[in-house]
Amino acid sequence: MFRLAAAFLLVASSALAQVPLPSWNDTQTRTAILDFVESTTDPKAGTFVQPQDRVAVFDNDGTLWAEQPVYFQFLFALDRAKALAAADPAWAKTPALKAAAAGDVKTLLEGGEAALTEVVFATHSGMTVEEFTREAGEWVRTAQHPTRHRTYIDMTYQPMRELLDYLRENGFTTYIVSGGGVDFMRGFTDEAYGVPSPNVVGSLGKATYQIVDGKPQVTKDPGIAFIDDKEGKPIGIMRSVGQRPIFAAGNSDGDYQMLDWTTAGDGPRFGIIVHHTDAAREWAYDRDSKVGRLDKALTDAPAKGWVVIDMAKDWKTVFAD
Amino acid sequence: MFRLAAAFLLVASSALAQVPLPSWNDTQTRTAILDFVESTTDPKAGTFVQPQDRVAVFDNDGTLWAEQPVYFQFLFALDRAKALAAADPAWAKTPALKAAAAGDVKTLLEGGEAALTEVVFATHSGMTVEEFTREAGEWVRTAQHPTRHRTYIDMTYQPMRELLDYLRENGFTTYIVSGGGVDFMRGFTDEAYGVPSPNVVGSLGKATYQIVDGKPQVTKDPGIAFIDDKEGKPIGIMRSVGQRPIFAAGNSDGDYQMLDWTTAGDGPRFGIIVHHTDAAREWAYDRDSKVGRLDKALTDAPAKGWVVIDMAKDWKTVFAD
Repeated sequence: MFRLAAAFLLVASSALAQVPLPSWNDTQTRTAILDFVESTTDPKAGTFVQPQDRVAVFDNDGTLWAEQPVYFQFLFALDRAKALAAADPAWAKTPALKAAAAGDVKTLLEGGEAALTEVVFATHSGMTVEEFTREAGEWVRTAQHPTRHRTYIDMTYQPMRELLDYLRENGFTTYIVSGGGVDFMRGFTDEAYGVPSPNVVGSLGKATYQIVDGKPQVTKDPGIAFIDDKEGKPIGIMRSVGQRPIFAAGNSDGDYQMLDWTTAGDGPRFGIIVHHTDAAREWAYDRDSKVGRLDKALTDAPAKGWVVIDMAKDWKTVFAD
Repeated sequence: MFRLAAAFLLVASSALAQVPLPSWNDTQTRTAILDFVESTTDPKAGTFVQPQDRVAVFDNDGTLWAEQPVYFQFLFALDRAKALAAADPAWAKTPALKAAAAGDVKTLLEGGEAALTEVVFATHSGMTVEEFTREAGEWVRTAQHPTRHRTYIDMTYQPMRELLDYLRENGFTTYIVSGGGVDFMRGFTDEAYGVPSPNVVGSLGKATYQIVDGKPQVTKDPGIAFIDDKEGKPIGIMRSVGQRPIFAAGNSDGDYQMLDWTTAGDGPRFGIIVHHTDAAREWAYDRDSKVGRLDKALTDAPAKGWVVIDMAKDWKTVFAD
């Protein structure tokens, strides 16, 4: 009798474990995802896709984690400016760096793009790539979001983490393709998303190979080598992956070209957009937002066949924590 | 009796299949490789390396396949110039392109770097990345080497293919890191080396995202975006892989920085150099060669602890065919 009960529990828990996308409500959106994966992985279906062609790409900011009130990498730059100035008061030697170190965002914004760029460059250079990535990961795991009072790693989206897992369980290879800096993201993408460093495609800062104290190292320099946004996303994918994906997820017009190029290919294709509709649990914004503006992609989604996630309706849970 | 014989054959063939590096002679070089792999994969050894850190990088030209009389990608450019001029005589509209289309290498060389660059750009642009990669792969599989009269894919080195397999069987992830163009190499690296497109790091041509006849695509443009040679190799690895390898293989001074940076890290490290010593079966060249010059790396190898492959003595077989 005990054995029977144990066996029953085992079967039941194993069945439960196999329900895909548990944090998604049972809506058309969830069904569309399940149908696509089933159709591309059933060897008897005409829509079957070989595992090596099951390439799925995900934007990060606003798609896999939140991006309000401003991209988290910028909040990292401010925290780092504060820490650098605390360690060496001479570090903050310009008005922009002084404002950053003081957390004075108003003055920074008045300085426009020049000031913002100066802060990002100054906080993202002068150490090896490995040191920078370690610091970024440490910050994502421990620093607190200014208004939500939780760590940034807990502001990743549980439903999207499940989607990444589900795709991988079905033989897809998952990539992050983000306007964010690749060295920043690599600090946490493996832990948060199960996406290891080589599968992270992002914007590239300048870097130098040099011998320091007799030891060769690659250090981060001020300056941008590649911007992985808009037209840059398909180009970044062809540079790093070398093939067109069949699945793309984004949330803003910065993902338009990646979605369009992905879904314009032959055979089964899937484009999906996270629409921020949930002011209660997350934020609600789209066409008029300064961060993560979603306008043209939202307008064109029906004609392009892109699935639009209604965060308020489609997600049982928002954050992973 | 038949069953017993069959079982015996099965065991024997399986034992044979397990002898690693069968095309390597039983020399110190082979022993050094086996020892390194054993020491890094034995969980009880103090030198054990976690699988995610078993990153191995290989140069391509002169390390995984031959590179004489000149880098094969340049011979591809010449063949392509010929084909393009045959399809459209107006294509060869400059002296350099005319010389390339006629296979007149002497005139091309007289034109210096400007002429060579012009030919490479003209033959490596004006189509989608996917089309270019397909053409490159087709050429590698079918075109004949001018003096060896075999296909280029048959000029890959059998011992190095075995080394790649052996490392992967032991939980290493293998990457190609070459000065060659990434879109060129991806045409054959999976078939020849078992290295799929995302694991190929190379020089990058310029590319554009554009809508052609209503279809979005990424096309190759004339121009260079990144040169993956010398200092560029460690930088290219940090861009694409995001971590320092523990194993590096090269054959020329262009690999010096990659070897040095790889082997300067903490813990067990392995650097290996293919020394072209075999004029009978391949080519013999090093310090004075225009292609694949091996000078400083050969001088410094003993002090750096890099293993030098003596192709004539260490390899039973050279080419894979």
